[in-house]
Amino acid sequence: MTERPKPGDSADGPLVNAANRSPQVAALLAEFPVIVDLPVVWGEMDAMGHVNGVVFIRYFETSRFTYFARLGPALQGMGTADRGWILASLTCRYRAPLTFPDTVSVGTRVSAVGTDRYLMEHRVVSHRLGKVAAEGDVLIVAYDYRTAGKTSLIESDRAAIAAIEGHDPPTMKG
Amino acid sequence: MTERPKPGDSADGPLVNAANRSPQVAALLAEFPVIVDLPVVWGEMDAMGHVNGVVFIRYFETSRFTYFARLGPALQGMGTADRGWILASLTCRYRAPLTFPDTVSVGTRVSAVGTDRYLMEHRVVSHRLGKVAAEGDVLIVAYDYRTAGKTSLIESDRAAIAAIEGHDPPTMKG
Amino acid sequence: MTERPKPGDSADGPLVNAANRSPQVAALLAEFPVIVDLPVVWGEMDAMGHVNGVVFIRYFETSRFTYFARLGPALQGMGTADRGWILASLTCRYRAPLTFPDTVSVGTRVSAVGTDRYLMEHRVVSHRLGKVAAEGDVLIVAYDYRTAGKTSLIESDRAAIAAIEGHDPPTMKG
Amino acid sequence: MTERPKPGDSADGPLVNAANRSPQVAALLAEFPVIVDLPVVWGEMDAMGHVNGVVFIRYFETSRFTYFARLGPALQGMGTADRGWILASLTCRYRAPLTFPDTVSVGTRVSAVGTDRYLMEHRVVSHRLGKVAAEGDVLIVAYDYRTAGKTSLIESDRAAIAAIEGHDPPTMKG
Repeated sequence: MTERPKPGDSADGPLVNAANRSPQVAALLAEFPVIVDLPVVWGEMDAMGHVNGVVFIRYFETSRFTYFARLGPALQGMGTADRGWILASLTCRYRAPLTFPDTVSVGTRVSAVGTDRYLMEHRVVSHRLGKVAAEGDVLIVAYDYRTAGKTSLIESDRAAIAAIEGHDPPTMKG
Repeated sequence: MTERPKPGDSADGPLVNAANRSPQVAALLAEFPVIVDLPVVWGEMDAMGHVNGVVFIRYFETSRFTYFARLGPALQGMGTADRGWILASLTCRYRAPLTFPDTVSVGTRVSAVGTDRYLMEHRVVSHRLGKVAAEGDVLIVAYDYRTAGKTSLIESDRAAIAAIEGHDPPTMKG
Repeated sequence: MTERPKPGDSADGPLVNAANRSPQVAALLAEFPVIVDLPVVWGEMDAMGHVNGVVFIRYFETSRFTYFARLGPALQGMGTADRGWILASLTCRYRAPLTFPDTVSVGTRVSAVGTDRYLMEHRVVSHRLGKVAAEGDVLIVAYDYRTAGKTSLIESDRAAIAAIEGHDPPTMKG
Repeated sequence: MTERPKPGDSADGPLVNAANRSPQVAALLAEFPVIVDLPVVWGEMDAMGHVNGVVFIRYFETSRFTYFARLGPALQGMGTADRGWILASLTCRYRAPLTFPDTVSVGTRVSAVGTDRYLMEHRVVSHRLGKVAAEGDVLIVAYDYRTAGKTSLIESDRAAIAAIEGHDPPTMKG
């Protein structure tokens, strides 16, 4: 029996439906190869009546894991479950408050690659506001579970990133 | 200036896009007049590798508040901010574990209406599994903020519920 | 090398410090052998300005896993990682709204034991209010990961529960 | 009727109980005037089996709001609800993974004050590990709800911060 793609199960991950993005939203995310669309849910608002600041970090994570899912085949190609990615640090700059109801499109891209690490940039765009609600970056370090320490990126990691980005990202120190 | 609907801002609420639901998913939610589609996000999984049981209660809430949003115009028609809904109790029966990536459609309907309360039923359907992942109900009580106590449903409440449901729900005690 | 207990690492689990509970709070939890004390944190409040209803279900879970941790040695005594507990259903009755700052004591007890399942009761008591904020129960089913299906409780499960409860809980059907 | 302090309701906020901190934990937080102790709860762990990275940002927030609560009387002294604090940006550096069960002590201090902003530093220390699990900072901007824009810190703001810190924090640009 053939297995056909299920709704909401595309290569880009959950609920990616570029047709729902206005030209304005799409333009703000033009440089981001991986984008997920997420509903703002009522329970994400805090006692101030806005989406809580912590929730934006979860939005980043959701978009990032969709990027990881796309890197996956390359990683599996390494034939090992011994390597992984460690979140070393993150930053977030809050630009505009969000409220329910709204939908956000959250982009992720790799903006620089080093010997054992790479920098991912995230941008959260509000459909309702038509502007950037938050942006930030995370530093990801390659990790070897056998030695419980940092390791180097290997060629297939770099190739998988370059394939998603459509170019070789700039080099970074470290 | 005219105001046009914004993406993700339909009458049914955020990210409602019935076209994404398979016939199987749609059939499982046929009796639910309000349905929201939510991506399962990676961070909702717990150390067991499944979507945490608490998250299903959040799914219920998200669908419920979309129902409330549709009741809204009728409530605003009462010309008062003094009345609200109190969550008195809830139940949840877990049917199948969820994992990332997936999309869930979460339905809400009012199954019974009493003097000062009504019963809402929720059902969570997994797109990936094509079956019910959880279902439950919540008891909602009408609340008067001026007297800080229970109050009665009024005619426009009942009318708004009947309009969404397409019929008068059965009567319940209380 | 001797290993001494670390702060916050007692048999009852994290931050259990019975001395912090007023007689009133202690009396409301007298029948609960496992109790955890949790701070209400600001970010748990929603746009209504009260602790969100979903958070109470997390409070239940936190107390329940402390109970599980105490069952643990008996489970390890079975010499297998193939058995586990499945959350089959839950109920919650909301009694009083919570706000930050406050501390809650959350009790868990097993109120009935069946062939392949047991019923746990949870109660959340507010230190600030000196009363019950919510209570509910969860149905737990024994699960065999090898057969991917329900299994029976074994004698050491029953003995571990009876040891925590101080008596054999009543029998339930199922 | 006199009102006496309730359990868990001290000046430092919820569950602050310095006696529970080992000398090692206390030393790591010696420069932090506001510290909260929080249990690591089971449900904060993600599919990797560690406390999810987003949760650390919530730990920061919980400690920060306890600091805000201590600033409160000074703010109320301004006789206005028209001023507030806006979270402009944050950073987090992850140092060590956390697991349940554990307790964290989370410190907050103001490390620099500008014309309309101040920088808060957070540090999360694990009781179990006896070391720093994460640290970061947030930039807070004074906000005037009447003009919906930035405003300046006033003298009582600075005085309240200096009183908590025990000295005038260094000056920052902006």
